[in-house]
Amino acid sequence: MDRISTGIKGLDEVLRGGFPKGRTILVVGSPGSGKTTFAMQFLVGGAKAGDPGLYASFDQKPEWVKLDLASFGWELDSLEQSGKLTFIDATALKRRGQRVMEPETRVGSQVSLQIPELTLPSLARMIGRIAAEEGTQRIVVDPVTSLMLRYPEEVKRRRALLHFFDALESTGCSCLVTSEMRTSELERKFQLEEYLSQGVVLLHTMIHNGSIVRGLQVEKMRGISHDDQLRPYQITQAGIEVYPKDKVFEATLR
Amino acid sequence: MDRISTGIKGLDEVLRGGFPKGRTILVVGSPGSGKTTFAMQFLVGGAKAGDPGLYASFDQKPEWVKLDLASFGWELDSLEQSGKLTFIDATALKRRGQRVMEPETRVGSQVSLQIPELTLPSLARMIGRIAAEEGTQRIVVDPVTSLMLRYPEEVKRRRALLHFFDALESTGCSCLVTSEMRTSELERKFQLEEYLSQGVVLLHTMIHNGSIVRGLQVEKMRGISHDDQLRPYQITQAGIEVYPKDKVFEATLR
Amino acid sequence: MDRISTGIKGLDEVLRGGFPKGRTILVVGSPGSGKTTFAMQFLVGGAKAGDPGLYASFDQKPEWVKLDLASFGWELDSLEQSGKLTFIDATALKRRGQRVMEPETRVGSQVSLQIPELTLPSLARMIGRIAAEEGTQRIVVDPVTSLMLRYPEEVKRRRALLHFFDALESTGCSCLVTSEMRTSELERKFQLEEYLSQGVVLLHTMIHNGSIVRGLQVEKMRGISHDDQLRPYQITQAGIEVYPKDKVFEATLR
Amino acid sequence: MDRISTGIKGLDEVLRGGFPKGRTILVVGSPGSGKTTFAMQFLVGGAKAGDPGLYASFDQKPEWVKLDLASFGWELDSLEQSGKLTFIDATALKRRGQRVMEPETRVGSQVSLQIPELTLPSLARMIGRIAAEEGTQRIVVDPVTSLMLRYPEEVKRRRALLHFFDALESTGCSCLVTSEMRTSELERKFQLEEYLSQGVVLLHTMIHNGSIVRGLQVEKMRGISHDDQLRPYQITQAGIEVYPKDKVFEATLR
Amino acid sequence: MDRISTGIKGLDEVLRGGFPKGRTILVVGSPGSGKTTFAMQFLVGGAKAGDPGLYASFDQKPEWVKLDLASFGWELDSLEQSGKLTFIDATALKRRGQRVMEPETRVGSQVSLQIPELTLPSLARMIGRIAAEEGTQRIVVDPVTSLMLRYPEEVKRRRALLHFFDALESTGCSCLVTSEMRTSELERKFQLEEYLSQGVVLLHTMIHNGSIVRGLQVEKMRGISHDDQLRPYQITQAGIEVYPKDKVFEATLR
Amino acid sequence: MDRISTGIKGLDEVLRGGFPKGRTILVVGSPGSGKTTFAMQFLVGGAKAGDPGLYASFDQKPEWVKLDLASFGWELDSLEQSGKLTFIDATALKRRGQRVMEPETRVGSQVSLQIPELTLPSLARMIGRIAAEEGTQRIVVDPVTSLMLRYPEEVKRRRALLHFFDALESTGCSCLVTSEMRTSELERKFQLEEYLSQGVVLLHTMIHNGSIVRGLQVEKMRGISHDDQLRPYQITQAGIEVYPKDKVFEATLR
Repeated sequence: MDRISTGIKGLDEVLRGGFPKGRTILVVGSPGSGKTTFAMQFLVGGAKAGDPGLYASFDQKPEWVKLDLASFGWELDSLEQSGKLTFIDATALKRRGQRVMEPETRVGSQVSLQIPELTLPSLARMIGRIAAEEGTQRIVVDPVTSLMLRYPEEVKRRRALLHFFDALESTGCSCLVTSEMRTSELERKFQLEEYLSQGVVLLHTMIHNGSIVRGLQVEKMRGISHDDQLRPYQITQAGIEVYPKDKVFEATLR
Repeated sequence: MDRISTGIKGLDEVLRGGFPKGRTILVVGSPGSGKTTFAMQFLVGGAKAGDPGLYASFDQKPEWVKLDLASFGWELDSLEQSGKLTFIDATALKRRGQRVMEPETRVGSQVSLQIPELTLPSLARMIGRIAAEEGTQRIVVDPVTSLMLRYPEEVKRRRALLHFFDALESTGCSCLVTSEMRTSELERKFQLEEYLSQGVVLLHTMIHNGSIVRGLQVEKMRGISHDDQLRPYQITQAGIEVYPKDKVFEATLR
Repeated sequence: MDRISTGIKGLDEVLRGGFPKGRTILVVGSPGSGKTTFAMQFLVGGAKAGDPGLYASFDQKPEWVKLDLASFGWELDSLEQSGKLTFIDATALKRRGQRVMEPETRVGSQVSLQIPELTLPSLARMIGRIAAEEGTQRIVVDPVTSLMLRYPEEVKRRRALLHFFDALESTGCSCLVTSEMRTSELERKFQLEEYLSQGVVLLHTMIHNGSIVRGLQVEKMRGISHDDQLRPYQITQAGIEVYPKDKVFEATLR
Repeated sequence: MDRISTGIKGLDEVLRGGFPKGRTILVVGSPGSGKTTFAMQFLVGGAKAGDPGLYASFDQKPEWVKLDLASFGWELDSLEQSGKLTFIDATALKRRGQRVMEPETRVGSQVSLQIPELTLPSLARMIGRIAAEEGTQRIVVDPVTSLMLRYPEEVKRRRALLHFFDALESTGCSCLVTSEMRTSELERKFQLEEYLSQGVVLLHTMIHNGSIVRGLQVEKMRGISHDDQLRPYQITQAGIEVYPKDKVFEATLR
Repeated sequence: MDRISTGIKGLDEVLRGGFPKGRTILVVGSPGSGKTTFAMQFLVGGAKAGDPGLYASFDQKPEWVKLDLASFGWELDSLEQSGKLTFIDATALKRRGQRVMEPETRVGSQVSLQIPELTLPSLARMIGRIAAEEGTQRIVVDPVTSLMLRYPEEVKRRRALLHFFDALESTGCSCLVTSEMRTSELERKFQLEEYLSQGVVLLHTMIHNGSIVRGLQVEKMRGISHDDQLRPYQITQAGIEVYPKDKVFEATLR
Repeated sequence: MDRISTGIKGLDEVLRGGFPKGRTILVVGSPGSGKTTFAMQFLVGGAKAGDPGLYASFDQKPEWVKLDLASFGWELDSLEQSGKLTFIDATALKRRGQRVMEPETRVGSQVSLQIPELTLPSLARMIGRIAAEEGTQRIVVDPVTSLMLRYPEEVKRRRALLHFFDALESTGCSCLVTSEMRTSELERKFQLEEYLSQGVVLLHTMIHNGSIVRGLQVEKMRGISHDDQLRPYQITQAGIEVYPKDKVFEATLR
């Protein structure tokens, strides 16, 4: 199975060679666990290696996301201008009810989804169309959690998720989807997003003897053999770094 | 009671002679615990010993499943071409609402279930018919979890499960059904799938002192006396391997 | 109060003389805990001492039950032919909706409940009638859990359970009813079956330091004084054996 | 405040002088914890000291209750014949729907509540009337749990409980009501029965290092100062015995 | 901020000077934790210092409350006769449905709320009117839990609580409201009563190594700086006594 | 990214330079954890440095809030008179149903929201308008919990929260919102307020060996790198003080 580098320091080693290519990977973590950093690092890694990427932002407008990540020195603007990175502003999906009224506008490689009657299916089609036009290799959807807000009814949410994951899969790109969830909650319930993804990476935040401890776990990764242990990670000045040889509680003793 | 080899290294020893023949066994585990690997290994073991097998895939298209398992070197394509393995693509059941519209198509020994108005009963009838035609001895349904998506109402889901397990039983084959569930959830509730199966194998994923630990437990196996202890297992290059003489927490110390 | 031997090695000692005669005892345990073995051993013990018994099977057809228990060497077929054991196939109650259509058929001492419009009340009447005709002393209903499937509404299920326990009681026989439930669940809720029985035996399955541990507890037994401690038990080649002098965690150290 | 002896060995010492007179006390415990034994011992203690008592049985017919308690040697029949103990068979309330049809019958001092349209209010009135006629000093209602079965709707159950506790209170007798509940459940929720009683005695059943441990706790007792510690108790040949000077876990070491 | 003495031995020290004047304080505890004793001690302390108090009793008739507290020697009758203590019998609110029919009667300084159509708003108005007439400085409402019984619908209960707390606040008196709740339950949920009060005092009942341990915690007290540690307390012959210098588990070692 | 000083002693060090400017920060804690103190200290810190602030009070009237915080010596009245602090009395939103009737009144820089038909959208507009007029730099909304009371239906509450957070964001000010929640509850569920904020500060209250322990955790803070450890804090005479170099359980040993 073909592999692609994750762009996350130490993670390729955990995966014994990177993510499987062309699959949909879910990244799950609590607030502040670094999901957006993880996702953008994945795109930047690809862009620097020549793979155009697409970032669909459900919660934060692209300007804000870029501002939040500015300290990492990834030069997102220059990647965008060179066409290596395309931003889709899908925040309209979160705020309004079932539809938005304004027409789509496009400035440079940033697309603002203000098309009439924006729905999840139309967003899915648009992602597919742009990905095809731009020769996109990697897609990030950050975070899928917003669908919860639009679909309070479980049955409809379930159908929307199924449809949306299908649409991502049919692009042929390597996709990464983030989801906000506490790990304690994770231990309780069947989670549809996990089930629909070919890979699941958990970002655990634990309190151990009064200290916050962060650990990454590759819970599921179809098609490849990988390290399934909990490995410490940090959010450093250069982005997320995983320590593939350390154990979580030992790491807290440093 | 007649036994059949499970095809899983070490598991026949745990069972003191393999699965009872002609029964329905449930394999339960969390995402990434190796349920699909387990299930296919069961079929491959049978096929190599001359027993034709049938794999009904509810989530992943057969091509993908084969790709995911390619690294184990089981030569699934050649088993399929020689008629030892038949794949049923039942993914249509997951995606659509209550019915699908396209007619059934059949290419080689792979059947694509695009019959008009595919329902679970019609799928059950088809499995029965194909099993009879092909002289199938082993059937895998991977995973039954998808029924949850189609039957959001508990009463209907319950009825569908009852009906489907009855249909499997009436084929006379040895059947293996997988189900995605976290083990912490398992400790809480009555699970209909467990109740309807003649045997239940649990694939536990635990966090012990910051390490991921995997353990297999034969919870129930009607008609035979077996080891009921938790035994460590790993997903190796050759598939799942159970260590029938080890204990779980000792195993983590290696 | 009159006592009857339980037929379970070691259990009469725990009870200081066997079950109270003419009462309804509930046996509760998780999948694989040995409920069916326990129940049949109770009947076999009675039959060998001259008490005719009746086994009403809600989940498994009698042939299957006999096959599952064949390894214990209890000679169920010969007990059946000599009229010491009668099997009632009540599986139709689980599968269908509210009624079944086929007429009752009777082959030897095995009764197949295919009467028109089989309902729980008609089953209860039939059990009463057969028990009277055969001079039955012991009745087993295995498991009552199936009623959950037929009565998804709590109010109706409750009424059905009340009615059914009344019917058992009015036969004058010593009755044993099994119920599938996890012990962790048991610690949480009021359970109507427990409340309606004059005695409750719990079959605990616990994980202690990574080992599966089985323990039997006589939780309630009206009318007699008994050992209420948790005692280890095993499913041996001869059936269930309780160790009335051992403690559970000591037993795990052997 | 006037006190009455509880009749339970060791409990008067825990209460520093017995129950407060004329109040309603709730006894709560899991199946097999000895609630019925406790309640009858309370009546027998009173009867032997000259106070006529009344036992209203919601679950078990009086004959059965007497049989169950026969081993304690309390001579219930002779107490009944001498008018010191009156049994009310209120089991009809559990079994039927909202009403029963048969007229009340009275044999000796045992009253069978088969009055037309028996409702909880009419039962309450009857208890009041009989208590007045017989000069009853102590009333037991065993167990109030059955009301749950008759009133599946929470609002109605609540109203019935309020009404029934008011009726008990207005008799002027010292009343004891039992309720079946697990102690783990107790730690979770507001319990109306507890709230409506002037005193609450908890019969705890705990598992401590694999042993069953029983402990009595006087949780609430309005109007008196009492020992509020958990004290070990046993069900002995003479009934319930509390060890007012021992601590629970020390007691398990004997 | 002005302070008033709590009347509870040791509590003024925990609060570093008493309750803030003119606020509503909530006292929360499980059955038997001493809520009523606490509340009356607060009124008695005020009355002895010259502040007239008003006790509105939702559960127990005033005669009973006085009887229950008689052993503390607080001379409640003489305080009532001298006009220092007024009792309002609001038990009618618990028992009936939405209204009561009888006209208000007034005997001495005890008011029986049998006004036509007694509702919570009319009770609130009455409390306000009496407080104004009597020059009341302290008001106790014991317990607010009864509102749960009258308002089974959450939305209405919420509105009633809001309204009632507003009414108390508008009297200008220092108010103390009790609420029956287990502390384990407290750790789980948002509690409206806590949220609406300016101060919250928790009476914890814990089981520590098989002993019952009682601890008082001032969880919230707007406007003052206070000790927020858990402090042991006992119900002594003189009422509640808090040990402001002790720690809870040390205290259990005495 | 621009930073602003938090005004909380020790917190700027935890954040490595203060809050990011122009963002919405959520402060979460249980009753009595110091949320209001935290929020006002944030405004006072700004006002003293020349940034006008606005405090919208949902629960307590501004007079009361000022009184409660009087002991800290922050001279709130003088800050208000000099226009550095504006108070909005939004308590009407909590008490009434969906609307209030009285016209808006304005006394000095305190605004009483008694406009006809006050709704959350009109409050949001008013906050925006006043912020623009006064040149406000910092806004506090204390606490957002009240919205729960006004919007019992989850779907409407969700929409109101989304709208309100959008309105805050569009003011361009640095906003701080408080929310009352127990930390044990926090570990369970997805919390919309957390999700909608760019930063989350948790005020933990824990019981450790019978002592109350307080710890502050910066769970999420988009756009900046910060210390994510749990740090002890106290409510001192000068307001909240965080100890950025200490660990929580060590701190309890002093």
